[in-house]
Amino acid sequence: MHQTLVTNIHQLINVRQQTSLPKGSQLAELRVLKNAFLLIEDGKIVAWGEMDKMPPFTNEGIDRIDAKGASVLPCWCDSHTHIVFAASREEEFVDKIKGLSYAEIAAKGGGILNSAKKLNAASEDELYNAAIQRLHELIKLGTGAIEIKSGYGLCLEGELKMLRVIKRLKETVPIPVKATFLGAHTYPLEYKRDHAGYIRLITDEMLPAIASEGLADYIDAFCEEGFFSAAETETVCRAGERHGLKPKLHVNQLNSIGGIETGLKLNAVSLDHLEVMNADEITKLAKSATIATLLPSAAFFLRMPYQPARALIDAGATVALATDFNPGSSPSGNMGFVVSLACIQMKMLPEEAINAATLNGAYAMGLGDELGSITIGKKANLIFTKPIPSVAYLPYAFGTNLIDKVMIEGKFV
Amino acid sequence: MHQTLVTNIHQLINVRQQTSLPKGSQLAELRVLKNAFLLIEDGKIVAWGEMDKMPPFTNEGIDRIDAKGASVLPCWCDSHTHIVFAASREEEFVDKIKGLSYAEIAAKGGGILNSAKKLNAASEDELYNAAIQRLHELIKLGTGAIEIKSGYGLCLEGELKMLRVIKRLKETVPIPVKATFLGAHTYPLEYKRDHAGYIRLITDEMLPAIASEGLADYIDAFCEEGFFSAAETETVCRAGERHGLKPKLHVNQLNSIGGIETGLKLNAVSLDHLEVMNADEITKLAKSATIATLLPSAAFFLRMPYQPARALIDAGATVALATDFNPGSSPSGNMGFVVSLACIQMKMLPEEAINAATLNGAYAMGLGDELGSITIGKKANLIFTKPIPSVAYLPYAFGTNLIDKVMIEGKFV
Repeated sequence: MHQTLVTNIHQLINVRQQTSLPKGSQLAELRVLKNAFLLIEDGKIVAWGEMDKMPPFTNEGIDRIDAKGASVLPCWCDSHTHIVFAASREEEFVDKIKGLSYAEIAAKGGGILNSAKKLNAASEDELYNAAIQRLHELIKLGTGAIEIKSGYGLCLEGELKMLRVIKRLKETVPIPVKATFLGAHTYPLEYKRDHAGYIRLITDEMLPAIASEGLADYIDAFCEEGFFSAAETETVCRAGERHGLKPKLHVNQLNSIGGIETGLKLNAVSLDHLEVMNADEITKLAKSATIATLLPSAAFFLRMPYQPARALIDAGATVALATDFNPGSSPSGNMGFVVSLACIQMKMLPEEAINAATLNGAYAMGLGDELGSITIGKKANLIFTKPIPSVAYLPYAFGTNLIDKVMIEGKFV
Repeated sequence: MHQTLVTNIHQLINVRQQTSLPKGSQLAELRVLKNAFLLIEDGKIVAWGEMDKMPPFTNEGIDRIDAKGASVLPCWCDSHTHIVFAASREEEFVDKIKGLSYAEIAAKGGGILNSAKKLNAASEDELYNAAIQRLHELIKLGTGAIEIKSGYGLCLEGELKMLRVIKRLKETVPIPVKATFLGAHTYPLEYKRDHAGYIRLITDEMLPAIASEGLADYIDAFCEEGFFSAAETETVCRAGERHGLKPKLHVNQLNSIGGIETGLKLNAVSLDHLEVMNADEITKLAKSATIATLLPSAAFFLRMPYQPARALIDAGATVALATDFNPGSSPSGNMGFVVSLACIQMKMLPEEAINAATLNGAYAMGLGDELGSITIGKKANLIFTKPIPSVAYLPYAFGTNLIDKVMIEGKFV
């Protein structure tokens, strides 16, 4: 048994006796304990409270850390990323600035198929080495749990390679990693006129192979005009279900084509993106147990309207925030910046944004009992900030990295 | 004489034989030398070139730095900030998210007058200690020259106190600091109905006192509806001129009220903000020698339309980028993020944004001969990046701090 006592914490942020998934107006409930201590045992939180009520803790061998006025909050839980990729795509970024259309960029070999081409040319080791470097950078930025999608393979071998890389990441990084199979990311060129053929490849070849190696936790599809229809999305997800994979879906990024209804029918764990939502869809989603995962970095980078966070929260929806880190539409895995964007651009309150990026992100990966709040029994995956005067200062000081140190299972990284 | 030789630079960015102020389409001209070396002598650049043409440099005592594939660019030159302030204002940020109007926030004691109240209550030492800490953080973010404004005093003693703090910063930080007198930031409460009286205070009391202590390099006014009219701005600037202060002005942030015409008549060094510009103003500014300084962080934080960077550049204007770091409308001094915003939101090319944030920023502070490019004779104020595949990667990877080390006058900070 190894104990670590953290004293003199200026603000202990997101303290909860027990957790359930905060919905709607509950998202603004963020308990902050001033002048606090925290006790960690074997990587887990075992006690917390106010400094002036701290028991003596005379145990021999206890490690003592003086937080010296740092604020401490649970690590970010980033529930939507694509961080296994072979190469950045800044040349497409420049083409877009120059005014090239999506079709013109695609004609030059850009877009998801660009990433797919490069991914299929890269070895598993190359992909793993690049991804683990990215992941260690993200941990330094405070990410303490992450979901990673496949979807740049678009063929049996490529998808298996990506998912094997994610499996190796699971085994080698100190934070929880969840794997999502996104074979239905786009149609590869050879199946451009044979959607049914590609869907059969997903359902009849990819999924059985993935299941037999235990490579995925979730199934995803890009439900969008020109990509996967609501019916195609359902076919893919039903096949995933038969292999024990719950859906987490890309819906309503560019168009509303029935993805919300399909996702709710499938009891999706989360429906992600949601830039384009009508009032009826907001109401339906708010009434459900499905998490609405907003990805403001993608809207920011693509100069698109932001997700209707306020309308969703006010309707009672369960909102989470994630980065969508990927080389095409969101080349950033900085959850602190996502929290700033959520407040500055989507008018979420700092308390709402922090809950959405921690506890609700954890629930969006099935990790709500392990992470996302300062709760006894949860993992001590914690962010220690530089001195900050208030919780609101975190999103307010948007250009500043306020993270001083990151602790994973009780140890500073 | 002390020499430092930097070898194995992957990309030496913004290399110039000599410099003049790039206008319009010239802004996209950014020379990048691959696989380069750089020689520094007593804090200044004395030679640069390709590695395979590097002379032997056998001088005794020469320091050698292996850049190991870092890219090297001139430090950012941030020509518009308000970094001397007493307190952050995140409570107003939250009020704005909650939907309070500017008038309601002002009625609660918010806005510039909030900063003025807190500044006048703070001692010179307190202000200096807070500001120098901010400045050291900015240097770590790559800022190698900075302009700082007064304007939170709004009374003789308060303005002198701020400018004395800026003078102490000039004397104690290793980077060039320029001071701008912004007594005409807003009308203090006691002069709300006596604009002429406050302007007389500026022209007849503040300016002579400031000039006698040599406290300012430039004069500024907030030319805006409800603040200083074009005629009032001219009166203030003419008085400043008589004390040797050139104008750098806040114009067209919220409304077009003649600030451009006035600024051009006054031969302003720069006209800053420019969110709201009509075609005629763009043409006039483009034809002039005045620099158009764009502050996208303020537009971002206030959820306002961005400055028309493309129209200005395409019309031939001389565009610079700065942070506007201040506690109310731009609580960030991160020039790297400004460069990202310029590309992502204002469609500037990466080359244009880097020139605007380095060389043109230097010229906007009268430092074009000393800083802002890799040119023989200029100060070796340099950013060493983490490995980056291309120049465009800098703005593209918007959530990542790509700065590895910062060198000021040849020494790593």
